[in-house]
Amino acid sequence: MNTRTSTSQGRPRNAEATRHRILAAARKEFSGHGLAGARIDRIAELAGANKRMIYAYFGDKDRLYEALMERQIAEWVEAVPFTPDDLAAYATGRFEYMRAHPDVRRLAAWRTIEQSKPTDAERSIYQARIDALAAAQRAGKVSSAIPATDLYSMVARLTESWLSAAPALQATSRDPLGSKRLAQHRKALVEAVRRLTEPR
Amino acid sequence: MNTRTSTSQGRPRNAEATRHRILAAARKEFSGHGLAGARIDRIAELAGANKRMIYAYFGDKDRLYEALMERQIAEWVEAVPFTPDDLAAYATGRFEYMRAHPDVRRLAAWRTIEQSKPTDAERSIYQARIDALAAAQRAGKVSSAIPATDLYSMVARLTESWLSAAPALQATSRDPLGSKRLAQHRKALVEAVRRLTEPR
Repeated sequence: MNTRTSTSQGRPRNAEATRHRILAAARKEFSGHGLAGARIDRIAELAGANKRMIYAYFGDKDRLYEALMERQIAEWVEAVPFTPDDLAAYATGRFEYMRAHPDVRRLAAWRTIEQSKPTDAERSIYQARIDALAAAQRAGKVSSAIPATDLYSMVARLTESWLSAAPALQATSRDPLGSKRLAQHRKALVEAVRRLTEPR
Repeated sequence: MNTRTSTSQGRPRNAEATRHRILAAARKEFSGHGLAGARIDRIAELAGANKRMIYAYFGDKDRLYEALMERQIAEWVEAVPFTPDDLAAYATGRFEYMRAHPDVRRLAAWRTIEQSKPTDAERSIYQARIDALAAAQRAGKVSSAIPATDLYSMVARLTESWLSAAPALQATSRDPLGSKRLAQHRKALVEAVRRLTEPR
């Protein structure tokens, strides 16, 4: 695809490629500095774009952030399918995704620190997952000992418990984020989720 | 106690009270902006102190941050005793502490985002806890299914899984941080830790 368009400056551009570069630069800037600390100037510079282009394509900083989060969430939902009947599989998928995407981990951490407003789309995703998990509990496939919302929040956090552990805790392991150590942790994660979800 | 001393400006001051005010202001500033974003000017203003006083008492921003973290960690270790034989009790203690101290939760989150260098004292605390937990496992009081370091990191994160959940996930509950909802979650937390640690 090579759909060419023009900016307000009249220079020919590949609009899709430019949007893509801007979003990639935004991901780097927002994951490094959060929403409040991010600067459109730096995003423009990194993307090789100018600020007017960013405003024209996405609107202000808040809108750019929303566009980025929307895309990130869609990618993540596609990459890590939610399997309510097999939360251990979901947990290892989420763990591997978070391992491969430290910038996504940082975006999520910023979101919690800054308590940025959730979008309706995000709420819908979570609500659908909690409903599916509750259904798996009613069907006896997952233990009902822990209510679905609490269980979902626990499994999500467990997948980051080592990757996002306090630096001082990680420092008790040799090569804490090396592949050998992460393989050990992954095994521990499967055992943990099995224990939380197994019907007795 | 009313130990009075003098600053370099020659004004009489209660040195302990001033240190205390500076540390309280530092906690507010660092929990709001992280280490990189914090500004000594704002800490001075909030503490009703001047920058020279802060430098004289604590040194530069990094030293002030270290002094704060050292004090926070000491307070936390004292407030939430680590009980390796009863991790559910430890988990509820940690949960209640984190619930009562959102600023401490934020300081910890910043630490993970900024990957600030752990102190030797912090490493020693974690190492001692992991050793004690491994001993409880060898004694058969805690299941050995999950290695001590992984288990410790999981229990720690579980205590924050709802308090620090993604805003969109919290939004699926009515009054997500209200006392009724937190009492439900606390019960779920006890069940989860029991499942993770129970010898079979």
